[in-house]
Amino acid sequence: MNTIAETTIEADPTVPVIRITRDFAATPEQLLRAHTDPTLFAQWIGPDGTRARIEHWDARNGGSWRYVSEGDGEVYAFRGCFHQVGPDRIVQTSAFERNPDVVALETLRFEALGPGRTRLHAQSLVDTFERRNAILLSGMRTGLDAGHAKLDRMLADGTV
Amino acid sequence: MNTIAETTIEADPTVPVIRITRDFAATPEQLLRAHTDPTLFAQWIGPDGTRARIEHWDARNGGSWRYVSEGDGEVYAFRGCFHQVGPDRIVQTSAFERNPDVVALETLRFEALGPGRTRLHAQSLVDTFERRNAILLSGMRTGLDAGHAKLDRMLADGTV
Repeated sequence: MNTIAETTIEADPTVPVIRITRDFAATPEQLLRAHTDPTLFAQWIGPDGTRARIEHWDARNGGSWRYVSEGDGEVYAFRGCFHQVGPDRIVQTSAFERNPDVVALETLRFEALGPGRTRLHAQSLVDTFERRNAILLSGMRTGLDAGHAKLDRMLADGTV
Repeated sequence: MNTIAETTIEADPTVPVIRITRDFAATPEQLLRAHTDPTLFAQWIGPDGTRARIEHWDARNGGSWRYVSEGDGEVYAFRGCFHQVGPDRIVQTSAFERNPDVVALETLRFEALGPGRTRLHAQSLVDTFERRNAILLSGMRTGLDAGHAKLDRMLADGTV
């Protein structure tokens, strides 16, 4: 039996922030690894039918990253820098290269809920509500849900 | 005669942003250099009576920075990563190390106004109005005005 975990996506009414909450059958260390090990990250990030190719990856304070997502004949590149990595938090910038002027400040926090249960709190901050709302309308949930479902399977089969 | 340029500091009422505008007798290239060359940057940043020591500096897309400001027996450290550097824009994270959970996303833009005149547009974005207002109350204008006055003098005497 597969239990599909509930992902909450919240648009803050007072600041141009998106907040995402999602529980995993994982320890905080496993979630950190899934988000910082490039080989693991490439295996779950993005919607079904796409493949992520890591072009650059240096997951430490002051490092940076870039990856390309390929699928249905299209190529989408994303890049950013890591302000802070670990132990229970990642703070990074993130931009879609076709829209380089929209830079988000992302904060991921891994909250231990109990043995083998961890809650991901992800926050994405941009500088206008228009930009925030455009991100929400860009098909965010489809990609998130598919990616997190892949991560669930990797946690279940011991890949992470 | 010294003309003191006017610095505008604006707290946006709708998003937790601080916007700073200031004109310089400089080209955009000179302002970019003053913000990216560590030797030049250390000479003007910060209030009078402090000395900046660059601990780490890699001013390029995906690079990072850290500096320490010393004065009146106190040491203040700041660090961040460079999301984007140049030609007319710098996008970076910035945090005061004593308050590491408050990370700002800063955007600096250098707008050519005419021969030898450039307007600096600086924007600092944080995730709550409380944090934004605390930054405004932290003595920001004193440090900015003193730093920019030093930069004026360096531009006038050909240091930049």
